[in-house]
Amino acid sequence: MKATVSRKAHFNAAHRLHRSDWSDEKNTTVFGKCNNPNYHGHNYELIVSVTGDIDPDTGFVIDVKILSDLIKEHVEDVLDHKNLNLDVPYFENRNPTAENIAVVIWDKLRPYVDLKMDLEVILFETPRNFVTYKGK
Amino acid sequence: MKATVSRKAHFNAAHRLHRSDWSDEKNTTVFGKCNNPNYHGHNYELIVSVTGDIDPDTGFVIDVKILSDLIKEHVEDVLDHKNLNLDVPYFENRNPTAENIAVVIWDKLRPYVDLKMDLEVILFETPRNFVTYKGK
Amino acid sequence: MKATVSRKAHFNAAHRLHRSDWSDEKNTTVFGKCNNPNYHGHNYELIVSVTGDIDPDTGFVIDVKILSDLIKEHVEDVLDHKNLNLDVPYFENRNPTAENIAVVIWDKLRPYVDLKMDLEVILFETPRNFVTYKGK
Amino acid sequence: MKATVSRKAHFNAAHRLHRSDWSDEKNTTVFGKCNNPNYHGHNYELIVSVTGDIDPDTGFVIDVKILSDLIKEHVEDVLDHKNLNLDVPYFENRNPTAENIAVVIWDKLRPYVDLKMDLEVILFETPRNFVTYKGK
Amino acid sequence: MKATVSRKAHFNAAHRLHRSDWSDEKNTTVFGKCNNPNYHGHNYELIVSVTGDIDPDTGFVIDVKILSDLIKEHVEDVLDHKNLNLDVPYFENRNPTAENIAVVIWDKLRPYVDLKMDLEVILFETPRNFVTYKGK
Amino acid sequence: MKATVSRKAHFNAAHRLHRSDWSDEKNTTVFGKCNNPNYHGHNYELIVSVTGDIDPDTGFVIDVKILSDLIKEHVEDVLDHKNLNLDVPYFENRNPTAENIAVVIWDKLRPYVDLKMDLEVILFETPRNFVTYKGK
Repeated sequence: MKATVSRKAHFNAAHRLHRSDWSDEKNTTVFGKCNNPNYHGHNYELIVSVTGDIDPDTGFVIDVKILSDLIKEHVEDVLDHKNLNLDVPYFENRNPTAENIAVVIWDKLRPYVDLKMDLEVILFETPRNFVTYKGK
Repeated sequence: MKATVSRKAHFNAAHRLHRSDWSDEKNTTVFGKCNNPNYHGHNYELIVSVTGDIDPDTGFVIDVKILSDLIKEHVEDVLDHKNLNLDVPYFENRNPTAENIAVVIWDKLRPYVDLKMDLEVILFETPRNFVTYKGK
Repeated sequence: MKATVSRKAHFNAAHRLHRSDWSDEKNTTVFGKCNNPNYHGHNYELIVSVTGDIDPDTGFVIDVKILSDLIKEHVEDVLDHKNLNLDVPYFENRNPTAENIAVVIWDKLRPYVDLKMDLEVILFETPRNFVTYKGK
Repeated sequence: MKATVSRKAHFNAAHRLHRSDWSDEKNTTVFGKCNNPNYHGHNYELIVSVTGDIDPDTGFVIDVKILSDLIKEHVEDVLDHKNLNLDVPYFENRNPTAENIAVVIWDKLRPYVDLKMDLEVILFETPRNFVTYKGK
Repeated sequence: MKATVSRKAHFNAAHRLHRSDWSDEKNTTVFGKCNNPNYHGHNYELIVSVTGDIDPDTGFVIDVKILSDLIKEHVEDVLDHKNLNLDVPYFENRNPTAENIAVVIWDKLRPYVDLKMDLEVILFETPRNFVTYKGK
Repeated sequence: MKATVSRKAHFNAAHRLHRSDWSDEKNTTVFGKCNNPNYHGHNYELIVSVTGDIDPDTGFVIDVKILSDLIKEHVEDVLDHKNLNLDVPYFENRNPTAENIAVVIWDKLRPYVDLKMDLEVILFETPRNFVTYKGK
């Protein structure tokens, strides 16, 4: 029997959407207020979901405490209270859009979740905007 | 890399569930309190999701501002503060159930979203009842 | 020891803001989209709070089951799935604004709550607009 | 046209995670605070989703009132205000983890939902931990 | 300038409402399903609010980190994953109603908050039932 | 009859807690992760409440549309997608703590709300931390 276990987490960060190889005009047209050179920020809410067989011994797909610790170590400790553009090397050459942040979170967690299990990340940039990434 | 971008929106409307070709008794049996001839209403909450490739130039699947403008023009401006039965031609011969409202919203948005992308609509009629429609 | 016990409830209704003694123009200016002659509607969320002494025998200020039943009988059964303008006599000569609906709810509940206790009503017309009324 | 209708419900219960065939030490290691011999408890929030064709006569996949009554009779009346370990026979030889509770809820509802329709259960053990089960 | 700083927290617990000096019949009449001898449980959500002057040096009334640590030490570590009737001495001779739990939380925190500041506790027993206690 | 009308709004911003007249060590001790020199950020959620008499002509204390426009012009347009330390003159010599941001929002709105009415601002820095300011 397969089930999906989901855990919510959160972190706060500053970011800016910008391409240095584009003109100021093009940056403003494409990224609007998100291009503010002094940065703005968000409370990111995160849902990490793991799908796999229910272990008949424990009744767990994955112990939520273990999942929660993985998120703390590999996501929250890396991204919380950070400036994504300046403090997170992954975004040196990539825009910290919600899509790209979801991808980096998925990439950071994938090595620590049994490959027989599916992994999904939902990232809320605001309570009204969110992104889902399943690794393909 | 494929991801899904979701945007929440909302509108308020009055409606009534009723078939004029049914007896009053049958209407009451099937539609219960929702058959009130003077109408009742809801705060409809809407989640529109678009799935497609992440554009490597921008880091966007679709700019949420564009998605939000599409929802405003084709959904909110058409349905907000309206009587769905009397003010929305689509419901002249169809019941404005949550299912049918989700379908009409999907149909209104589909022409404006790139056909390479999947479209999904979730419509909350109340905080405890909601409907999902993916276009098939 | 005094404490406040609060209970959430909800009902759905249609309404319209309109004064028949005003011109159409003035109605539109003052009430905007809420003046739609065909009505629109809301999921009203309600919080009823009762403040009084904690009964040392039970540990209750008021049994939440009793409070919940009072709200069902005197508020939900009267307002749920109704057209406030047409189906609720109180609004025959009064606009069903959130303010006035909160007042009528308070008036309906006051006779059933011990006068030694304070009564407060919070009414959400939408998740972003709400009104508080304490009876004075 | 296929759509999914979802209904939220809730119940409160006490439970304990424990295997009598394991040592106290192993129980503590695996189940942590959830192994408290005196039990602890949760407000379980439940989302039941049914996917099927929209009936052109009514505009319903399934009448939400019917779905809500099924949940009340087969889930809430059985699990609400109960000790899952002591009061629910299904958990006599099985741990009442969120995964297993989702499975038992799905099993209880499946016989009452048309087999042409898909059934999914999402169970929130806390606002931050939840499980999804689709019956396979 | 006075402001109020509020912090949300949560804990899970089992409890039962019962008076051993009452007959079974009276216990059932007054406490209903909450009298289940095997206990049931809740996810308690807590809001602790401290009102005082804004310190012009820091811009804080109270550092939220300090408030959060106080709640963890004096409330969460004492009540989380516990059976309130059996594991918490305060409830040996008192019913663990939401009112009484709010009082005990307030009493536990009061010694650690500057007496020039006001303290308020809001305790949600379920998302729809909550209690407010201000210490008088 | 007096009632309170409340309106929710939101804005995103970056900020940093720091005093240039303190040592790095003291800044770290007092402000912790919030002292990151590259800034971090939040989705600020705001509730603005106005208390006054219900106008018998309209049934309004204040038209929510007017209140919403005031918040947009004087708060959202000034603070949204900004770096509070660098882009908002008020914080040149003051820490942008939640307390101080609530005060500046109240100060910005007070001139536009009838002095016979009371004004209150609640500011959520995260879903779990918030501040209330009533102007004294």
